[in-house]
Amino acid sequence: MKHFGIKNFESLSKIYRLNLINSITGYKSANLIGTQSLKGRENLAIFSSVIHLGSNPALIGFILRPTLVPRHTYQNLKATGVFTINAVTKKYISDAHHTSAKYPENISEFDQTNLEIELKKEWKAPFVKGAPIQMGCHYENEYEIKENDTIMIVGSIQHLYVSDFLLSEDGWIQLDKAGIVTINGLDGYSEPKHLRRFSYARPKFYK
Amino acid sequence: MKHFGIKNFESLSKIYRLNLINSITGYKSANLIGTQSLKGRENLAIFSSVIHLGSNPALIGFILRPTLVPRHTYQNLKATGVFTINAVTKKYISDAHHTSAKYPENISEFDQTNLEIELKKEWKAPFVKGAPIQMGCHYENEYEIKENDTIMIVGSIQHLYVSDFLLSEDGWIQLDKAGIVTINGLDGYSEPKHLRRFSYARPKFYK
Repeated sequence: MKHFGIKNFESLSKIYRLNLINSITGYKSANLIGTQSLKGRENLAIFSSVIHLGSNPALIGFILRPTLVPRHTYQNLKATGVFTINAVTKKYISDAHHTSAKYPENISEFDQTNLEIELKKEWKAPFVKGAPIQMGCHYENEYEIKENDTIMIVGSIQHLYVSDFLLSEDGWIQLDKAGIVTINGLDGYSEPKHLRRFSYARPKFYK
Repeated sequence: MKHFGIKNFESLSKIYRLNLINSITGYKSANLIGTQSLKGRENLAIFSSVIHLGSNPALIGFILRPTLVPRHTYQNLKATGVFTINAVTKKYISDAHHTSAKYPENISEFDQTNLEIELKKEWKAPFVKGAPIQMGCHYENEYEIKENDTIMIVGSIQHLYVSDFLLSEDGWIQLDKAGIVTINGLDGYSEPKHLRRFSYARPKFYK
């Protein structure tokens, strides 16, 4: 095996280090976060850092680096208090990835990609039309991670929309049935296939 | 599409809500975290919440619910300051999932599964032998997420071991080459296949 010590990380090129360290924690979720400015301008951006934080209440988190460059997602969700999360499917990976381009604030990523906007009367942030999972979220809090000046946004799920065919009897959603993808590193997209589910694990006292 | 409002979440059965809300944020990483108590007893536990926090310094995070039940991983990493993260491959999903069973503190999950321990002289926490990605991490900090009494542990990567065949020229690791899996919901395991990588996205000013 190749061994890298912490001193080696510092001597790697920036690109090599970014690719390596972004890959090693494993697969990440692929979601588009939709927001709207106070002036009504929509914004859409790909995130690989959306995580489950809890089920009761239903909470999610994601990581932002607000100090590096202008972050329209952050500005908008702070200004309006709301955002949407939309699952990325195989069909749209190219458009989803393109939302990471740094457009000026007055340009909507919906206009620069084939992703279509869906507005719902019950939520003041744009959804991605056709996404098999859509969430209307409320900004709850943010935590500054002082070790590297990032922040974790905490949001509550207020509205959840799921394609009917995805819902199983016990609430589990088999993501591959909708072609939902996962992110490998900074820029790799992969399509998972379900292997198996396990029952609740209980101790056994023999091997 | 099926619509759930926040009021609906509250009226769902606990199992249905757990399955649903754990599925909707998308695919999660699959890692085994290894620790050791001050008495030298090893512990190994599956986590689906390990995330990338930053590349320089190389930081990871994961979520714990310490207030619910005894959490040996948390006790050990607080006591010793160190832990390991080990990628889960297809071959070991059954054993990896079994580490979620609640064993007493004096029982090592390495003794109750086919997962084998690997000790390295440079790190005082156990690795999973044969895992294609292994990290020796140092506890850096923790953040209490007061919205639901969870905590996010922040750790720095001090040592990284990667199977040689996984490393590409620019540092990216194609996780499916090693059969690394991803987690869907609470108890589903999936195997991704790489679709494509994208170059750095730049604005285009026409559609």
